[in-house]
Amino acid sequence: MGKKIVIVGGVAGGASAAARLRRHSEKDQIIMFEKGPHVSFSNCALPYHLSRTVEPAGKLVLMNPEKFLKQYNIIARVNEEVVAIDRTNKKVKVYQHSTGKTYEESYDKLILSPGAKPIVPQLEGLDTIPTFTVRNVADIIKLRSHIEQNKVKTITVIGGGYIGIEVAENLREAGYDITLVEGEKQILRPFDEEMVQVFHKVLTDHGVQLLLGSPVSHFEARTVILASGEKIPTEMVVMAIGVRPESKLAQEAGLEMSPTGAIAVNESYQTIDDDIYAIGDAIDVNHLLTGEKARLTLAGPAQKAARAVADNINGIEIKASAYMGSSAIKVFEYNGASTGLNENIIKAQKLGLYYDKVHFILNDKVGIMPDSNPLHFKLLFEVPTGRILGAQAIGKGDVDKRIDVIATAMKFNATVYDLKDLELCYAPPFGTAKDIVNYAGYIASNLLAGDFKQVTVDQVRPLLEQNQIFIDVREVGEYERGHLEKAKNIPLSELRQRTQEIPKDKPVYIHCRTGQRSYNAVLALQNLGYTNVVNVTGGFLGLSFYEYFKDQVEQRKPIMTAYNFN
Amino acid sequence: MGKKIVIVGGVAGGASAAARLRRHSEKDQIIMFEKGPHVSFSNCALPYHLSRTVEPAGKLVLMNPEKFLKQYNIIARVNEEVVAIDRTNKKVKVYQHSTGKTYEESYDKLILSPGAKPIVPQLEGLDTIPTFTVRNVADIIKLRSHIEQNKVKTITVIGGGYIGIEVAENLREAGYDITLVEGEKQILRPFDEEMVQVFHKVLTDHGVQLLLGSPVSHFEARTVILASGEKIPTEMVVMAIGVRPESKLAQEAGLEMSPTGAIAVNESYQTIDDDIYAIGDAIDVNHLLTGEKARLTLAGPAQKAARAVADNINGIEIKASAYMGSSAIKVFEYNGASTGLNENIIKAQKLGLYYDKVHFILNDKVGIMPDSNPLHFKLLFEVPTGRILGAQAIGKGDVDKRIDVIATAMKFNATVYDLKDLELCYAPPFGTAKDIVNYAGYIASNLLAGDFKQVTVDQVRPLLEQNQIFIDVREVGEYERGHLEKAKNIPLSELRQRTQEIPKDKPVYIHCRTGQRSYNAVLALQNLGYTNVVNVTGGFLGLSFYEYFKDQVEQRKPIMTAYNFN
Repeated sequence: MGKKIVIVGGVAGGASAAARLRRHSEKDQIIMFEKGPHVSFSNCALPYHLSRTVEPAGKLVLMNPEKFLKQYNIIARVNEEVVAIDRTNKKVKVYQHSTGKTYEESYDKLILSPGAKPIVPQLEGLDTIPTFTVRNVADIIKLRSHIEQNKVKTITVIGGGYIGIEVAENLREAGYDITLVEGEKQILRPFDEEMVQVFHKVLTDHGVQLLLGSPVSHFEARTVILASGEKIPTEMVVMAIGVRPESKLAQEAGLEMSPTGAIAVNESYQTIDDDIYAIGDAIDVNHLLTGEKARLTLAGPAQKAARAVADNINGIEIKASAYMGSSAIKVFEYNGASTGLNENIIKAQKLGLYYDKVHFILNDKVGIMPDSNPLHFKLLFEVPTGRILGAQAIGKGDVDKRIDVIATAMKFNATVYDLKDLELCYAPPFGTAKDIVNYAGYIASNLLAGDFKQVTVDQVRPLLEQNQIFIDVREVGEYERGHLEKAKNIPLSELRQRTQEIPKDKPVYIHCRTGQRSYNAVLALQNLGYTNVVNVTGGFLGLSFYEYFKDQVEQRKPIMTAYNFN
Repeated sequence: MGKKIVIVGGVAGGASAAARLRRHSEKDQIIMFEKGPHVSFSNCALPYHLSRTVEPAGKLVLMNPEKFLKQYNIIARVNEEVVAIDRTNKKVKVYQHSTGKTYEESYDKLILSPGAKPIVPQLEGLDTIPTFTVRNVADIIKLRSHIEQNKVKTITVIGGGYIGIEVAENLREAGYDITLVEGEKQILRPFDEEMVQVFHKVLTDHGVQLLLGSPVSHFEARTVILASGEKIPTEMVVMAIGVRPESKLAQEAGLEMSPTGAIAVNESYQTIDDDIYAIGDAIDVNHLLTGEKARLTLAGPAQKAARAVADNINGIEIKASAYMGSSAIKVFEYNGASTGLNENIIKAQKLGLYYDKVHFILNDKVGIMPDSNPLHFKLLFEVPTGRILGAQAIGKGDVDKRIDVIATAMKFNATVYDLKDLELCYAPPFGTAKDIVNYAGYIASNLLAGDFKQVTVDQVRPLLEQNQIFIDVREVGEYERGHLEKAKNIPLSELRQRTQEIPKDKPVYIHCRTGQRSYNAVLALQNLGYTNVVNVTGGFLGLSFYEYFKDQVEQRKPIMTAYNFN
């Protein structure tokens, strides 16, 4: 006779744990409770139903109770909610939504995989406007039905995190008028401010009205009122400001909570009750880089925890891994990916790390291939050790590949020196002979060696306003198509003949299109005796993306004669 | 006064070394000799000019002597060939192709970057047929001009390596009738035989006539005669059977050669003459996994050597890295990538490694996303240590990402256990929550733990011919659309109810579509007391690709009722 294992929550974590449990034993009884109507659906793909990319909604449901029973001999009970845990007698109390009745089910081992629920702030007037959240298949069907039945045209999405942006993108793709409201000055905080301007521009270019630094005050009939007093007329609202762990059941059962409000677990995913485990979005993970507990509501760590907990229950001891939050997002024709720490996190958590950064733009494939595109790349590394802390990439091409490579290296505690020698696949349809990742290693190593100095694009405007000297080393034709108003044009090809025009006694900031020619110019000038030349990392292209959007949003005076995004 | 550095060869390695040398010093005199008309062109992109993907040919040339002079103060002399080295007096003798004159140039340091040249076997009748090779821009222009001027329709490409396949693909894309002749039983030896069948099928599906195991005997007018006697009518031939290091100059100068015929260098890329260095396709590299010298004519290692040699010459000691041969190729709508050792190499080099393999087919993205596609994946690992030896991936999607991740892990001497915990970027447009790489780690760990037994698709036919018992655990509808002739259909969903139909005293081979359901079936049966169940890894889909092409080429009796590539 086997064990009786009860699982609370039948989505990603719960369903994966159940399948793994069955592979360990044919004798165990496995019962999975899901309070909603579906088990094992694709949470992450929910927004793609709004643009009909995933159609019909039924496709979002990957398994049903019948299949669980037939293929795995797992009992999955939907519309049944575990409302209490009797730890002393090892029983759960189950509420049947269909009948309104409750019953008890005993367990030998209990796995809690309740997930996290969208936060809906109780603001004044919220009841005057149809408001939706996106957590499960029923939510997304309800949201789309409301739009279609009421012939809605204008929708406000509140919150610029992953879910908010994916919902806004997919609704815009479906043709609706979308306003995206974000309280902070940037969306998608896994990307730093200067990187994320690319996404700000892309959303704006696609007709999404983007309101940053705009906390919501309250609601009136068909209107969102911002803290600034601005009124956004809207027919409905999607609330996507974040999620909180669904930990009420565990808390009421006297289990311990973490400081973030998650269910506290040990390295074996055990709560303070040896027979009760917890996994998924309801728990914290160990952060690989900070050593602290962190909230990372990502599918990858949840899936790995599900597998580990099934192993632990069957006597195969698996310790919880540490994670660093690798993630990716598509925003119209652009892709973004990031891993590890960024400047937002380092500042917010006051980590007190000494770090430096590489920020450049390079072609993601051999430049002469027709689908080669600029890729914006940023790498953070510890000073003076060179240990890699995190990376971000945004572009039309294969950004996830570069970040996956960095994330893999980081698992081995890699330094920037390791990146120089990584041997990545190359052919013209896929990349360049020295990959972007190799370049990042080269540049970071040069910075650590003190070979040159740099400023990033977000530091340029104040320097220009102080009338610092900027030299644009692009060719004349490029300069004429758009340039920094105050920059002097000395093409790299004329640099050595025109050094008399460059003062030796003042700081000189050099830039080109992407930062490559300017890097050569900086080294040439240094080798010619200049001691205060500085490379503008990210170049004119990066600066264009950065300043273009800042100008639009902050109504500042442009510092360039034209924006050039090529 | 600086050093005088002379470089022989102005393509990838030479040009990169020159640029890096200039960044180290403004004082050094840098002279680069190129016997052809172009410096710094994109060798790897040459075939893409044939399909007009890269158009016009001028785009292939990335830099010219004027730019080298203006931007880097580097003297690049084209159509000038270094024909002798006077090591005693530290001078090279240069032949000017335009004037027919020779002159001498002295050096302090000499870098040899002559590359490798296509092998053209001196077979009878070669002069009766227009024959081309692909090494530089002039070659590719000549090749295309000949086709266009002579209104050629039928072309035979001899050799199924990277260049041969890329040339065949691009010419086929341009509409020509292509026959590809390969002496071995497979093309693209960085992929193992059972993997490469996907490419065999893709080429055939696109109308390329593929002749494997077909060494060429000789030529007659407008005809290629195979060793088998078969005659291939053709208007012209592209010879792409391989390259050999261009080491004649070095050899005549008394420099040491490696056993493979390459220029021998030490860890600092120095030849036996302290003032002469060599890089690129003319040298061997240290193989990361075998510890032996190996010929890897790849752009990545060449570029890294170029940088290292410039650093070494300037007193920054950089030791040569070890490489393992990461590479990628596009064949029509399919992509392939590989790294490290494969079974071809292990067998050919008699490495005597104990190894096992994982071979499976998984969706490269969440299955419900419209551009999700099956990805064929193979991982080799050492037994019993679990050290990763190599990997191969083929599919329509992002194969290079997975192989780059493996290659990165391998740089850190990773084991299959490390792959389980890699934290890769996930969102539905990019992958799956547990990536293919994580799965490979799981399955390999299970194999090492002895959790189950497997056979690969290439072992299936003999087992069927021995009348071994095969059970197909796909659903009835799937089975009816095509199945192994002798396989019994017991869907996974009925398995537990129908165990009486499965003998316990004989080996039982279980398969499904991709190997996932069969894996669950194998574990279920084992947990029910079966001791001799075996998973068919790669499943029906892998088997279909494998047997489909084998049937066509070897005219064997099909073992399946239909091929199903979905």
